[in-house]
Amino acid sequence: MNQWKNLDMLKSYQEIRNHNHPVDLTRELAGANGAERVARYQIPMAAGLVYNYAAKQVDDSLLQQLSNLAEECELSGKFEELYNGAVINTGEKRLVLHQLTRGQLGNPVTADGTDKRVFYTDQQVKIADFAKKVHSGAIVNEKGERFTTVVQIGIGGSDLGPRAMYLALENWAKKNGCFKMAAKFISNVDPDDAAGVLADTDPEKTIFILVSKSGTTLETLTNEAFVRDALKNRGLDVSRHMIAVTSETSPLASSSDYLAAFFMDDYIGGRYSSTSAVGGAVLSLAFGPEIFSRFLQGAAEEDKLATEKDPLKNPAMLDALIGVYERNILGYPVTAVLPYSQALSRFPAHLQQMDMESNGKSVNRFGEPVGYATGPVIFGEPGTNGQHSFYQLLHQGTDIIPLQFIGFKSSQAETDVLIQGSTSQQKLCANVAAQIMAFACGKQDENRNKNFAGNRPSSIIIGEQLTPEALGALLSHFENKVMFQGFLWNLNSFDQEGVQLGKVLAKRVLAHETDGALKAFSDLLNI
Amino acid sequence: MNQWKNLDMLKSYQEIRNHNHPVDLTRELAGANGAERVARYQIPMAAGLVYNYAAKQVDDSLLQQLSNLAEECELSGKFEELYNGAVINTGEKRLVLHQLTRGQLGNPVTADGTDKRVFYTDQQVKIADFAKKVHSGAIVNEKGERFTTVVQIGIGGSDLGPRAMYLALENWAKKNGCFKMAAKFISNVDPDDAAGVLADTDPEKTIFILVSKSGTTLETLTNEAFVRDALKNRGLDVSRHMIAVTSETSPLASSSDYLAAFFMDDYIGGRYSSTSAVGGAVLSLAFGPEIFSRFLQGAAEEDKLATEKDPLKNPAMLDALIGVYERNILGYPVTAVLPYSQALSRFPAHLQQMDMESNGKSVNRFGEPVGYATGPVIFGEPGTNGQHSFYQLLHQGTDIIPLQFIGFKSSQAETDVLIQGSTSQQKLCANVAAQIMAFACGKQDENRNKNFAGNRPSSIIIGEQLTPEALGALLSHFENKVMFQGFLWNLNSFDQEGVQLGKVLAKRVLAHETDGALKAFSDLLNI
Repeated sequence: MNQWKNLDMLKSYQEIRNHNHPVDLTRELAGANGAERVARYQIPMAAGLVYNYAAKQVDDSLLQQLSNLAEECELSGKFEELYNGAVINTGEKRLVLHQLTRGQLGNPVTADGTDKRVFYTDQQVKIADFAKKVHSGAIVNEKGERFTTVVQIGIGGSDLGPRAMYLALENWAKKNGCFKMAAKFISNVDPDDAAGVLADTDPEKTIFILVSKSGTTLETLTNEAFVRDALKNRGLDVSRHMIAVTSETSPLASSSDYLAAFFMDDYIGGRYSSTSAVGGAVLSLAFGPEIFSRFLQGAAEEDKLATEKDPLKNPAMLDALIGVYERNILGYPVTAVLPYSQALSRFPAHLQQMDMESNGKSVNRFGEPVGYATGPVIFGEPGTNGQHSFYQLLHQGTDIIPLQFIGFKSSQAETDVLIQGSTSQQKLCANVAAQIMAFACGKQDENRNKNFAGNRPSSIIIGEQLTPEALGALLSHFENKVMFQGFLWNLNSFDQEGVQLGKVLAKRVLAHETDGALKAFSDLLNI
Repeated sequence: MNQWKNLDMLKSYQEIRNHNHPVDLTRELAGANGAERVARYQIPMAAGLVYNYAAKQVDDSLLQQLSNLAEECELSGKFEELYNGAVINTGEKRLVLHQLTRGQLGNPVTADGTDKRVFYTDQQVKIADFAKKVHSGAIVNEKGERFTTVVQIGIGGSDLGPRAMYLALENWAKKNGCFKMAAKFISNVDPDDAAGVLADTDPEKTIFILVSKSGTTLETLTNEAFVRDALKNRGLDVSRHMIAVTSETSPLASSSDYLAAFFMDDYIGGRYSSTSAVGGAVLSLAFGPEIFSRFLQGAAEEDKLATEKDPLKNPAMLDALIGVYERNILGYPVTAVLPYSQALSRFPAHLQQMDMESNGKSVNRFGEPVGYATGPVIFGEPGTNGQHSFYQLLHQGTDIIPLQFIGFKSSQAETDVLIQGSTSQQKLCANVAAQIMAFACGKQDENRNKNFAGNRPSSIIIGEQLTPEALGALLSHFENKVMFQGFLWNLNSFDQEGVQLGKVLAKRVLAHETDGALKAFSDLLNI
């Protein structure tokens, strides 16, 4: 049995605390052995990706201590417990099975009387079948016309992950002849969101996907009503235009209002649902089920790597350990995610939810307050855009922000232009290489305004091209990193009680059951 | 003459340090006087907006101390110096004149032999004239067809601000019959950015705006070449499809390659250029010059408010002072910007640049290291989306993150749906009111997992509707807040030396003039 202990109860953690001399990157990386360090401090990932941590403030001695920490904290054992179906979500008393949507990592997991792997693959098969019928014209609109567009209605995990994945593969799919339908997304309860999307969409040729696990998410039901009104106003039969992705026990599951319904369950958290039916329906419709399968394949391979006991062979685990070192020993409060790929423009927003909603907690998995910092703030924008925006603070601000770069050798569209002796893609890659070194090593200048202190740590994940497999591997890497960090901090990373209070108060405002300051704010906002 | 001193040299700052007992919001706001506090702690802004700071950790005594700080730091005097044309950008020895693009705040400012206000308004008139000709069909493409789309090519300030402003008004313009042309943006040197935009655009009916102050920004020139190739491949005459926004001294200014050229100058920083020709060309083409004028009008009125000496009548100044209190006395490292308006989806990304590039510095305006924290990390997403994402950490994480809410009583499209007794817009507003109170007052619960500590401060800007005037006022508010914070920290907020080192190293990579770790990283990325 694994021991679930707070981070500061672990001997190996206290050893790191007591013997900490952060590595000086301006010496380690700038010196003669810099190239050797770059070659040595990296781990192969799935789908041809590589995790390189040469620009992190670690050395062999610290890596040994982090390995000890991984062992004492039983990270591998806890992951094993998770994928074999233990109740890891202690707050809600639920299993945590998102890895099972893409592969069988351990023993068969039975819950609710079903083999859950069979349940998830069944849904994938049903979705694939549905998508193929839409693409072939076996399922058409009232006039017998083919559907051209799919609009996902969902919020949080039903929006951010699927949207980020769609944007990540849109241009790749166009280039590779597997772009089937354009996808759009409605999420915000702000009526201008739905109005804006509908203004640019032909509803006659659109399939709407209503995504809500419980079938009770207020924003999503409101937007569904908004869309239903718009469809009815155009004389359309809503049940021919709308499908549901929900749990089998939700009120939506058996409604005749939908053309079809596909299922996930309580063991898939919203922020981990991109590889379930939540991502599966929209991505299979947009790009075809084969592409969605390749995405799952990449994630499954990367999950397998995450079962490695040795952190030096397990990129997600090592990334997690270094992150905890940066957060708890070095005291860095924020991490920036910086993909040098326009296709990953919303990937940081997805990681922001995945990470901050999972580990932004002050109590451990037993509900006891913890005495150390937990999840950092996560933000990011694609490079090179960020270089012309907030990098000033990253380079010369008073706080140190660890950086997570992502880069690919080839572009997706593979259309390029040669300017001043190099292609756009070469410029893009040159910039990320240059930034790693600029942050790590800095530059002395007598003019202090032009001085760069250096020792601003980063890691980079490098791939050949952002393919479906590479995207799956990337997603899995960060999901598993966040999971391992949750284990290290002894948190339940799979509930989100922090979102409840606002919901309760909002209902009170709408029912006009308020007084004092809440009533005063409500009045100011004309509610 | 104003004295430019470091923050920690000011007596009033030391007094705040020494006598600091942060206000307990769970008492102040939850108590019987909560409503009175909400009514009292607010300041009217331009365009019908209101800045409410009742949920900030301040009381009358601290407000008095902050007023003393404003006076001792001569915030008003320094702003006066700035708008009267002093060399506030000490590093680059430049005036700082973005406020002058929208109004004459002080004396006429002459530079380069010109009255600069006349120069800026001349450009506005020229842009208006050009835009009207495009809209009326006096300027058409080779086939005599009207242009339907405008694509801005620029990065950093030439992208984030104009893009955020366009998105903010797109649906409003559609609703109000002044939507003239769709606007798109190409920024990233990643070739997939330009390829993606061009794939969805009909270049025959498109005007491209090349925006680069110096005319030498590598990303922008690369994307220009990418677009030129695409136009030529379709047999189009590039000079009939491309205009330039640049400085009069740039190589682009007099080139015959462009249909027209409009000018800004060195006194408008990129991140402050939305109200100059950089924003003016694209917004006037998209919505008509009248709408752009209304946007400037809102900014001008808000600038006027920023000249108020009393911070209790000057929202930008008070916001700045409270922010410094939170950053330097309370030690909060991050601020979140949370607009409850889907139209402001990219407004936080613009503020992220404006704030972090301006005040992410470690040396004062004389180039001497400062011994205190400066600009915080800024991030944000629209509500209610964020509630289903990172709010978990904001509510229950181990760090306190001050929050900047923005909300409007009416939506822009004014299309809505009644569900469970309330409209979408009411739900949106109810949520932001509820969140303010949830963050400030929290909720005691014996189940620590459901416990909310409270005392998480926020302010809110409330408006009737997001109109051009309201948007201008919002933009000006944050620009002036950042300016006042720069004065408080004694920084030069108007240069960005921190972006230079990366550029130098990237050039070296592209020239293959590297060794050691930089060569090793370049090799990994196949450059």
